[in-house]
Amino acid sequence: MSTVVQSFIPVAKDSHFPIQNIPFGVFSTAQQTTPRVGVAIGEQVLDLAVIAKAGLLNGIEGLNDPVAVFDKPALNEFMGLGKPVWRATRLAIQKLLSENEPTLRDNSELQGRALVKQADVTMHLPAQIGDYTDFYCSREHATNVGIMFRGKDNALQPNWLHIPVGYHGRASSLVVSGTDIRRPAGQRITPQNKTSPFFAPSAKLDIELEVGWFVGKGNTLGERIDIADAKDHIFGLVLVNDWSARDIQAWEYVPLGPFLGKNFGTTVSPWIVTLDALEEFMVDGPSQTEPAPLKYLQENKKSAYDIDLEVQIKPNQTSKFEKVALSNLKYMYWSVTQQLAHHTVNGCNMRPGDMCATGTLSGPEKENFGSLLELSWNGTEKVIFKESKQERTFLEDGDEVNLTAYKDSKSGYRIGFGDCHGKILPCLYDNDA
Amino acid sequence: MSTVVQSFIPVAKDSHFPIQNIPFGVFSTAQQTTPRVGVAIGEQVLDLAVIAKAGLLNGIEGLNDPVAVFDKPALNEFMGLGKPVWRATRLAIQKLLSENEPTLRDNSELQGRALVKQADVTMHLPAQIGDYTDFYCSREHATNVGIMFRGKDNALQPNWLHIPVGYHGRASSLVVSGTDIRRPAGQRITPQNKTSPFFAPSAKLDIELEVGWFVGKGNTLGERIDIADAKDHIFGLVLVNDWSARDIQAWEYVPLGPFLGKNFGTTVSPWIVTLDALEEFMVDGPSQTEPAPLKYLQENKKSAYDIDLEVQIKPNQTSKFEKVALSNLKYMYWSVTQQLAHHTVNGCNMRPGDMCATGTLSGPEKENFGSLLELSWNGTEKVIFKESKQERTFLEDGDEVNLTAYKDSKSGYRIGFGDCHGKILPCLYDNDA
Repeated sequence: MSTVVQSFIPVAKDSHFPIQNIPFGVFSTAQQTTPRVGVAIGEQVLDLAVIAKAGLLNGIEGLNDPVAVFDKPALNEFMGLGKPVWRATRLAIQKLLSENEPTLRDNSELQGRALVKQADVTMHLPAQIGDYTDFYCSREHATNVGIMFRGKDNALQPNWLHIPVGYHGRASSLVVSGTDIRRPAGQRITPQNKTSPFFAPSAKLDIELEVGWFVGKGNTLGERIDIADAKDHIFGLVLVNDWSARDIQAWEYVPLGPFLGKNFGTTVSPWIVTLDALEEFMVDGPSQTEPAPLKYLQENKKSAYDIDLEVQIKPNQTSKFEKVALSNLKYMYWSVTQQLAHHTVNGCNMRPGDMCATGTLSGPEKENFGSLLELSWNGTEKVIFKESKQERTFLEDGDEVNLTAYKDSKSGYRIGFGDCHGKILPCLYDNDA
Repeated sequence: MSTVVQSFIPVAKDSHFPIQNIPFGVFSTAQQTTPRVGVAIGEQVLDLAVIAKAGLLNGIEGLNDPVAVFDKPALNEFMGLGKPVWRATRLAIQKLLSENEPTLRDNSELQGRALVKQADVTMHLPAQIGDYTDFYCSREHATNVGIMFRGKDNALQPNWLHIPVGYHGRASSLVVSGTDIRRPAGQRITPQNKTSPFFAPSAKLDIELEVGWFVGKGNTLGERIDIADAKDHIFGLVLVNDWSARDIQAWEYVPLGPFLGKNFGTTVSPWIVTLDALEEFMVDGPSQTEPAPLKYLQENKKSAYDIDLEVQIKPNQTSKFEKVALSNLKYMYWSVTQQLAHHTVNGCNMRPGDMCATGTLSGPEKENFGSLLELSWNGTEKVIFKESKQERTFLEDGDEVNLTAYKDSKSGYRIGFGDCHGKILPCLYDNDA
């Protein structure tokens, strides 16, 4: 039996951030308010700007100026360097943090400057996100929504099994975990009058449990990324809560898609978990034989990830988050690599730091549904909270939502994503005058 | 009769850029390849970085560091300073360029450094565009498309007369006028088999005649921009050709809207014409009484612009652009200020440099249609070129498209937008293997 590498920094057994993870993020502190790049280890952040300045990231091929890359308020530059550099850097950091490596372990002065408690830092969006695309890749979610709005016989649109359906989202309103979300107002209709809208705060404010993926290396406008190469273009994964105002969306979305029902805020978890850290959880995704996808979407190796995804809600005036849904990334029909191959097949260019999200990740059973729309079947059934006895169909003001995700390795450690948290603030406008 | 101000720089009568215009852009030269801000005057560019360094933009309230603002590769910082600064700066430039002002007129050394021929410069996108939103605000265009795909009785969707319908576009593939456009490939279907797609280059490559507007000053996430204030948040207008692959779009767009049918390239004209320069062309827009819009969309002053918009195509292997359509911005049903008020009514935040476009601007008559989709009635009628006798339904490889726009003032000068030009390159991929 091989020994599992340990860090000299204490890591609890249920920590999301053992030495086998090493997710990248951007943080600042009260003492040093300029954001810079760090990695999470146990309950600490390792400041890569400090580590780079100490010369401990020298000699990595392709990383010519580590200080310039990591003393930055965003990961875009590092992302653009490509997979061999990401991999070599992560390996160098793992070595530096391992229990048998004295360089940092035995230098308490450097540790004092390079390590900060996660509880003491402010996290920022990990990249300057140029474009945000949202896909619709869970067959169970698309089917549930289809049944609700079109009936069982036409649940999936004719294109759904051929195309990883996606649309462009809003980059400006992406916010990092912990940012409050303001309930939006807008045009709504009633079931009794479907053609005369009125103005009001959204009464169907919802969550969407999603995973986001960051583009590392991009492509030139006009060229495409072959599916065989797609994985090397993806820097890593995060959690995304794509808050949705279902009533605004239902009235506005024909024929050009969701707009104000989505773009009032989308929450992103701060730590990007690299694909390398998730490699051991790769599994076969759902069968794609009826129909087989077109060639540019065909993959001949594992492309799904077995990662548990959890939705937790703390209803207003209660004190505890309660689990509302448990899903898994492996349920997703179209893989992240298929999403990227499709996105670029027309020559659309991706840039380092662009973010795509999977769409709501539901599973086969009701307990796996990743939105209140599905859990309450569009408001017709109450979601009951077991401990607090609260009931919800959609979100109330003051409700807090947290998404989290992790998987336990066979070797005993846990690879996790941390939290993706937001609280609903009341709408500022109850009329449109 | 009041005398019209003239510049000491020669401006032809049909120039788009008299001293009454002063549009802002970003340019570079072979001698100085770093892009910086300039304005167009006649056939020249006035280099604002040089003018600022010469101290000639000092003393403008709110413009504390003119060199830092204009010696930049994008207008975002200037845009964020707000309307009083834009207005005062434009007035200062007009004064500097006027025939009675000796400062620059009599300083040939400074002129030599500050003025460059437009023929000798490379233009760039005028801003770093964080988000790009495309609206769908021409009633004639929406009606034409509706008739084609849903029949005359259901041409306009129920929401269309209540909402300035819009969707998010792709920012990464926005390119400046003059950039070649690569024909995209993707999934298509045939009329005979609407459920089994095949892969091929787009056979319905189209243009869309649009006007873009740049956000100057933005808003905080969660708050809205009142329609009474909207005009002060808009920096100015450009021309936009929203190239569209109709066959890819038709198969992919249900239910989340256009994606790969649009995001392979969108061309933007380089000179942003300020709203101040267009003030004299303001007119009443189409009547909005049946139905009246909700209050947040109601305006009590003129909000449309009387500007002629022209589509010109130079078919491959011919030598001349021929006019294909002549439309006008005043036909647009929802004004740019209504678009902005709607975009933010849910709290969506706009940032300086964000760009929105109007959607295809068609008018009532066939000669006013702003897309080949409409001009060829989805490929069922040939568009005949009078001079070259060429025929088109959609674009062929090698075809060049130019959009232009201007209006003649009663005072004898012309305010124009310049060109928005692109040429179609053949697809790189004729199969998906």
